[in-house]
Amino acid sequence: MGEVFRFLAAVAALAVSTGVTIAADAPPSGSLVAAASGLGQKALNDPAAFHFVESLTTEIGQRLAGTEAHQRAVAWAETRLKAAGFENVHSEPFTFPAWIRGAESAEIVGTVPQHLAVTALGGSVSTDANGIEAEISLFRTYDDLLAAAPGSLNGKIAVVTQRMVRAQDGSGYGAANPIRRRGPSEAAKRGAVAYLLRSLGTDNHRLPHTGALNYEDGTPRIPAAALAIPDADQLERLAVQGPVRIRLLLTPTVRESAPSWNVVGEIKGSERPDEIVLIGGHLDSWDLGTGATDDGAGVAIVFGAARLIAGLPQHPSRTIRVVLFGAEEMNFSGAAYAKAHEGETGKIVVAGEADFGARNVYSVQLPAGAAASDFGQTLDRIIAPLGANLDRRPALGGGDDIRELQKAGVPVVSLRQDGMDYFDTHHTADDTLDKIDPKQLGQAVAVWSAFTYLAASSGVDFRNLAPATK
Amino acid sequence: MGEVFRFLAAVAALAVSTGVTIAADAPPSGSLVAAASGLGQKALNDPAAFHFVESLTTEIGQRLAGTEAHQRAVAWAETRLKAAGFENVHSEPFTFPAWIRGAESAEIVGTVPQHLAVTALGGSVSTDANGIEAEISLFRTYDDLLAAAPGSLNGKIAVVTQRMVRAQDGSGYGAANPIRRRGPSEAAKRGAVAYLLRSLGTDNHRLPHTGALNYEDGTPRIPAAALAIPDADQLERLAVQGPVRIRLLLTPTVRESAPSWNVVGEIKGSERPDEIVLIGGHLDSWDLGTGATDDGAGVAIVFGAARLIAGLPQHPSRTIRVVLFGAEEMNFSGAAYAKAHEGETGKIVVAGEADFGARNVYSVQLPAGAAASDFGQTLDRIIAPLGANLDRRPALGGGDDIRELQKAGVPVVSLRQDGMDYFDTHHTADDTLDKIDPKQLGQAVAVWSAFTYLAASSGVDFRNLAPATK
Repeated sequence: MGEVFRFLAAVAALAVSTGVTIAADAPPSGSLVAAASGLGQKALNDPAAFHFVESLTTEIGQRLAGTEAHQRAVAWAETRLKAAGFENVHSEPFTFPAWIRGAESAEIVGTVPQHLAVTALGGSVSTDANGIEAEISLFRTYDDLLAAAPGSLNGKIAVVTQRMVRAQDGSGYGAANPIRRRGPSEAAKRGAVAYLLRSLGTDNHRLPHTGALNYEDGTPRIPAAALAIPDADQLERLAVQGPVRIRLLLTPTVRESAPSWNVVGEIKGSERPDEIVLIGGHLDSWDLGTGATDDGAGVAIVFGAARLIAGLPQHPSRTIRVVLFGAEEMNFSGAAYAKAHEGETGKIVVAGEADFGARNVYSVQLPAGAAASDFGQTLDRIIAPLGANLDRRPALGGGDDIRELQKAGVPVVSLRQDGMDYFDTHHTADDTLDKIDPKQLGQAVAVWSAFTYLAASSGVDFRNLAPATK
Repeated sequence: MGEVFRFLAAVAALAVSTGVTIAADAPPSGSLVAAASGLGQKALNDPAAFHFVESLTTEIGQRLAGTEAHQRAVAWAETRLKAAGFENVHSEPFTFPAWIRGAESAEIVGTVPQHLAVTALGGSVSTDANGIEAEISLFRTYDDLLAAAPGSLNGKIAVVTQRMVRAQDGSGYGAANPIRRRGPSEAAKRGAVAYLLRSLGTDNHRLPHTGALNYEDGTPRIPAAALAIPDADQLERLAVQGPVRIRLLLTPTVRESAPSWNVVGEIKGSERPDEIVLIGGHLDSWDLGTGATDDGAGVAIVFGAARLIAGLPQHPSRTIRVVLFGAEEMNFSGAAYAKAHEGETGKIVVAGEADFGARNVYSVQLPAGAAASDFGQTLDRIIAPLGANLDRRPALGGGDDIRELQKAGVPVVSLRQDGMDYFDTHHTADDTLDKIDPKQLGQAVAVWSAFTYLAASSGVDFRNLAPATK
């Protein structure tokens, strides 16, 4: 495995906003550092990304894939990409089964009736039109549910109140994810007629967190919803005192073969236009908020980073392709993109997705083998002044929409943003513009622009840096 | 005006939890300080107040006056007061027009439809069953609305987006209050068909703040609701871009002559039982949350303080009367109480109400003239170690439920709690138990118990301390 990081001979006359001019014969490393650093510094004070997410969340608002609002967002994005100087702007259609929220409510019934704040999980089947009423069986951990015997939940509404851990890197979400994704089928296997979980979130507001579930084949599909965190607390206290009955109403519907689109814009490479540095985010959002941090911020970051590069007098050697994915929340756009670009995966040098909020990037994970390379060391020098470190550990994944590309052999990067409060508002009605700090968003744009510029200006081949595997 | 703070000759054999025994011939000031201080120290670690509000918010939940839940709360409170050793426990009935929330929703309509989070103001009339749809006229300050000419809002929905200021003493709420109370009639006078305001709150969550309005006689009554704060931001941004139309649906109803009750429990005075130290909170709550900080905490504080005194081997000289008012949020219980006790106001030595959340008391305001008295100076010595100061300024008011008593000549105190985050959740669905810090609640109980004990054990006559007025 050889180090193949080569600086291009022809990074001729690159001028960045700082006025740095890189002559063809200048030491390439120093010139690239200066150019990428200048780009990063410019990004810190560039309002374009914030304006992008402000406009998207204000003029479109929620844009659940499959809704008319998402279609408007696609047209809006095409217009924005064209206006910002991107080339080859177009939308790539695909179809998927769109899940559309209906009515949703829950109450404790009996002698002490109380309203509960709930929201249906994405993909949940509906209850009867009058709702479903049953006694609950409450589990304080998911493992407790898994330990329950088959049949032990017959006729019950299973409730799991396990807490999600707050962590900067989002690891608490990863650990808790099966409670939402797989919990409904695990409860159904044991006889439950419906499923409720404490929202996967780190806040204490009466705003439940939605998110997709995955029913297991061959298991009855039962209605499933998330409780707001104070409501899960309330059920824990009441369940100690005696039996609790709940009436749950959920009336979502599914629209088969709904249209969606992955929106694409490019900065054509000046020397090797067929080699692609792919950066993306997802334009679709959940329907409860306006999708500001998930993922208005992400699409704004990659837009803002690429836009600055597009504004340079000369394009980098390789093509930069910005992809605004069209159905991430329901897990369809990444597969659609990978399928449509099957013949092209070998030409994608690297792929990255910004889908972890609006705060600063604190570390960057490169494909395996790259951290110690000249590319990695050069990047580290550029991002350290921006307040980010190169992580020696390789990126194990880069985002939901590039997972299928990764499986097809495309190297991925992970620009890790501070997620300490990301799950306070994630997938809730509270995901709105006011949660974004323009200064922190600017830092994320800076790190993304530096990485993207460096990857597109260099000849680095991440595939050849990877350690040999048996 | 004479200083009439006299220590009782017969504070014989007072024993407090710290084991301090006050002999009849001990220096009275020192003994009282020791007794009241011991009570305060005990309160800091007494879980009774927290358990009280935990039980109330868990087993009853919301208890809007006029609902069946409030009636259950009244029975619950009587049981609790009796169990804690209070005497003369009873509920004093009154009737009032109860306002009951119906459906409520708002959407921006037209080519970019969006959901808005709103909640009806208490007392608002309903819209038509299909809602009301109109273009908005947006004012960034209430003064801008007041400056609008009559007729200038004909057919419009008036929207006021003025921000409320965060302040420890709640002064931001006082300043903003007319926007909610009087705004609907001011908008109606200018021709508006409905009224929306930015919630009176200091948070940025999608949980609107309800609260009562006061229609002006002779002015058309128009439907009125509060926008969640991010939704007010959104309207500000959209209104800059062009006309905005909103459809508003509110279907509240009024139940005339609904029953409510002021729940009373006493600790009969050992020497002067006809002299009354009245401390209260309100048992009713708004309907969106579970009324934890407003005013579950307040009733828990006065309950907790009086309960510790009831547990002493000997009762203080004067009677301590705890009143849990029954319709504060709609402004009926204070007047009902004052009317029912018209003949008794001269016997009420002092009245205080805890109705400002669950955090620590940072200062105490006494009736005019008392701060410099022996009583005031003694109290200051007792509360300083608890982290509260005596404020030299007199209490101008003591709470909504004791305003009518105050008008009838009853001296009032104000034990001021830290309200820095009180208006983050005030009158919202987010007013739930998790917002209460048991340690801070305990400090408030400590200061209340020290004040109440001292006032009931002394012969202080606040009326005679008041400066002469012309």
